[in-house]
Amino acid sequence: MTNPTDPAMNGAESLVHTLLAAGVDTCFSNPGTSEMHFVAALDHIPGMRSVLTLQEGVATGAADGYYRMAGKTACTLLHLGPGLANGLSNLHNAKKAGSGVLNIIGEHADSHIALDAPLTSDIQGIARPVSHWVHTSKNVTDLGADAAQAVQAANTAPGQVAALILPSDTAWTDGGVVAEPLPTPERPDFDRSQFDAAVAALSGPDSLLLMGGAALTEANLEIAGRISAATGCGLLSEWSNARMERGAGRVAVGRVPYPIDQAIKVLEPYKRIVLVGARAPIGFFAYPGKPAVLTADGAEIIHLAETGSNLTAALTALCEGAGAMETPPAHVAASAMPDRPDGKSPLSPENIAALLGRAIPENAVIVDESVTTGRNFSPATQGAPKHVWLNNCGGSIGYGLPVAIGAAIAAPDSKIMALTGDGSAMYTVQALWTMARENLDVTVVIFANRSYRILRGELTNVGVGNPGPRAIDMLSLDRPNLDWVQMSRGMGVEAVAVTDCDGFEAALAEGLATPGPYLIEAVM
Amino acid sequence: MTNPTDPAMNGAESLVHTLLAAGVDTCFSNPGTSEMHFVAALDHIPGMRSVLTLQEGVATGAADGYYRMAGKTACTLLHLGPGLANGLSNLHNAKKAGSGVLNIIGEHADSHIALDAPLTSDIQGIARPVSHWVHTSKNVTDLGADAAQAVQAANTAPGQVAALILPSDTAWTDGGVVAEPLPTPERPDFDRSQFDAAVAALSGPDSLLLMGGAALTEANLEIAGRISAATGCGLLSEWSNARMERGAGRVAVGRVPYPIDQAIKVLEPYKRIVLVGARAPIGFFAYPGKPAVLTADGAEIIHLAETGSNLTAALTALCEGAGAMETPPAHVAASAMPDRPDGKSPLSPENIAALLGRAIPENAVIVDESVTTGRNFSPATQGAPKHVWLNNCGGSIGYGLPVAIGAAIAAPDSKIMALTGDGSAMYTVQALWTMARENLDVTVVIFANRSYRILRGELTNVGVGNPGPRAIDMLSLDRPNLDWVQMSRGMGVEAVAVTDCDGFEAALAEGLATPGPYLIEAVM
Repeated sequence: MTNPTDPAMNGAESLVHTLLAAGVDTCFSNPGTSEMHFVAALDHIPGMRSVLTLQEGVATGAADGYYRMAGKTACTLLHLGPGLANGLSNLHNAKKAGSGVLNIIGEHADSHIALDAPLTSDIQGIARPVSHWVHTSKNVTDLGADAAQAVQAANTAPGQVAALILPSDTAWTDGGVVAEPLPTPERPDFDRSQFDAAVAALSGPDSLLLMGGAALTEANLEIAGRISAATGCGLLSEWSNARMERGAGRVAVGRVPYPIDQAIKVLEPYKRIVLVGARAPIGFFAYPGKPAVLTADGAEIIHLAETGSNLTAALTALCEGAGAMETPPAHVAASAMPDRPDGKSPLSPENIAALLGRAIPENAVIVDESVTTGRNFSPATQGAPKHVWLNNCGGSIGYGLPVAIGAAIAAPDSKIMALTGDGSAMYTVQALWTMARENLDVTVVIFANRSYRILRGELTNVGVGNPGPRAIDMLSLDRPNLDWVQMSRGMGVEAVAVTDCDGFEAALAEGLATPGPYLIEAVM
Repeated sequence: MTNPTDPAMNGAESLVHTLLAAGVDTCFSNPGTSEMHFVAALDHIPGMRSVLTLQEGVATGAADGYYRMAGKTACTLLHLGPGLANGLSNLHNAKKAGSGVLNIIGEHADSHIALDAPLTSDIQGIARPVSHWVHTSKNVTDLGADAAQAVQAANTAPGQVAALILPSDTAWTDGGVVAEPLPTPERPDFDRSQFDAAVAALSGPDSLLLMGGAALTEANLEIAGRISAATGCGLLSEWSNARMERGAGRVAVGRVPYPIDQAIKVLEPYKRIVLVGARAPIGFFAYPGKPAVLTADGAEIIHLAETGSNLTAALTALCEGAGAMETPPAHVAASAMPDRPDGKSPLSPENIAALLGRAIPENAVIVDESVTTGRNFSPATQGAPKHVWLNNCGGSIGYGLPVAIGAAIAAPDSKIMALTGDGSAMYTVQALWTMARENLDVTVVIFANRSYRILRGELTNVGVGNPGPRAIDMLSLDRPNLDWVQMSRGMGVEAVAVTDCDGFEAALAEGLATPGPYLIEAVM
């Protein structure tokens, strides 16, 4: 049956109809037995794109990437508590990024739970730490309404993680009722009580406008650029941004660096900081003997707008307050492209950055999980044609390849570039198969430094200056080396390994010219 | 510093010394910044074997396999909430298998948690659904004692999952105190109130002794065999057993089948069932219109011994009660080997079963995640030389390759055979790299049926008789085919693909003769 008013509809069918009515038309799935009625409903109700993944972390990460580029929620289909558990770390990342994700999680039939079958678990308990909204739908007549609420929760700014737990008997019982979509709540106003202080604060190079979230669209950055040009304030974003629009012709915004000593140095000049969609800068980790708050002692911090509030209104009001609405912002020049490194030189982070800066095509979406290799990609790439840059906001590695899947499905006219460390890429390497299956237009670059390079630095940061062989071995991926070309081809994605700048430049050109997935192993 | 009485020891060092004193000498790790002091302690304190994994599901599954074969607890080292989350589904499996696992989970320094850094999460909340014991160690002087308690909890029969959450400042602060090991609690007595009823029940072929857990050792099965020979009762085990000792010269025990109709049929003759280390048979899932309790209507079920209780005592008492201590049990004949299928015939489940039955070497450990392909492996393999068979007790697929790692480390003199469906193996495919790194003696057999074959049957079971192309596509792995030989070689494990019985037989011989990991893709 495919008619949303059919009285004999079962729960799963009412759920699919409700999702479609609410604009949820993409499902990243890894189903099991308890989800078979949902699968059957997807089978005979047209309109939902189902994307199969081979591990649930791929599904949840893809939903995150989808939201960032589509600006609307996709659902996942996960098999009971353990299926949800496999997707949990990328839901953590989605939650921290402010991405809307609706997880539909199968559950045993209500009568079966007391029997404590092998797959029985506390699904709500597993969902809660990464979710804003959790509900188990035990009544078939309520399922449609529950789903409409779940979509509304996921769409609530900046985007939230919702878990709708679906017992199999609710799915298979007749009596489903399709629910009307609920409105997406308006973003609340910014904190007007802080407005005067914010306007007064932004004056001169010792003041900073620190932005995050939806403040980083081209239009909003244009406003920020006017403020900076008129007041002389600095412009920065957080280290990790869910989505930043950047490139030649746009207003450039630096990022607060990840390494704690660099971050402290970058923030040191600022005595007054206005936060718009950003949080006050803190260390990613605590380190013995180092501060956790990264701003200068005594710096005044003004919380003007939370990430979920109306950031365009906040920036516009600030701009008007500064009398800057007509002040032209500084734009990145199209000629600001890095020099080409010598072709035979090795693949250092600097050389890679330069070659990326020269290669990024117009409208590209860069999914950045480059960790140590990419620490300084920002300056070298800011003069590339207009593009979008996505960071990992939750810090759980393995986000890059899945997010690239979702971005590619949401933005089919863009070239997606997934830039990832080899260690990071391994956590969700199964994503390559889905890229091949869906023929997604993703160029994957693996930075094969064959170690958890970041941890070598962190050992030093926490005071372990001289690691011995066992510690080094626990951070090294070179015994054996991972052969990314073979792994990638094994999952159906064409691949090449390169070791110098000529090779990398040619591989990038090949990958970007290939309409579909392509993997480059950049051996460092 | 390496001396356990050194007064300047930090928390991490006191933890490592305490673990070693308690017999925990193997750590399956995937560390991050917050765990660097633990890594440093492992570096300079000898005695702990650290096994690096590239995804935390590999680490937790390996700890499960280790416990099953070593009979003692290994620890894992996981990075904050998301690292734990990645390991959660195999902890679910370990919990259901009754395996002891001690997870050491890094946490931010206490002062850092309120800052809500990107990796901050509710670690206790994530741990609780899969753990018997959860504790955050906030005081360096208590950490050693906390660790001793955690090991005791993990070692409590049949084996439990413990989560010790370690804030980085507890790890790095001086003042650690090494704790003495706590005794492993004795297994409690079986339920003697049920003893007379149990003895009376076991009489004739309409009575059944249903066993699980530690009842399935060679010695305990010998006792069960006497009971069966004397009373005429049937002998069965649960479908999923953490560890069963079997093969020629041992007492054979069938398994309650997974497919619900078969299970009901197998159990139908039994009017009286005595449970020793097993639970009353229920369906893995609920199906519309089918019963969830699989035993015959009105069957009397006697709960003699829970899985954590003294099963040897229970069986011995039963045997004495039946006057069977001198009754010789029936053993599997060494000649009970299946016929060799025609060499050119294709790789059907039946042909695979026969060739496995002919190839399993003495003392092999079979890690079985063969799902649909392996439904009928039991009869064909029971006449192989003495071996150990491990099932997935929690139903979350992706358990096989990681469990094989732990089994190989715990039983270095045994050949490990990991039998796994292709869909299952993909969830934790990163395990192959650790097998290569540690040169583990594992022959991996991938049953490449290129689908979630089990779900095709389950669609029918839940009443979806005629799936359409979209449903079939959501259960198919053939677009593109996974090339296991390339994936395996990409992670450093030699591999071969075979398509007929001759090829499979030769590959098995090659794999079993190779002292290290070897993968066979059995294309079905």
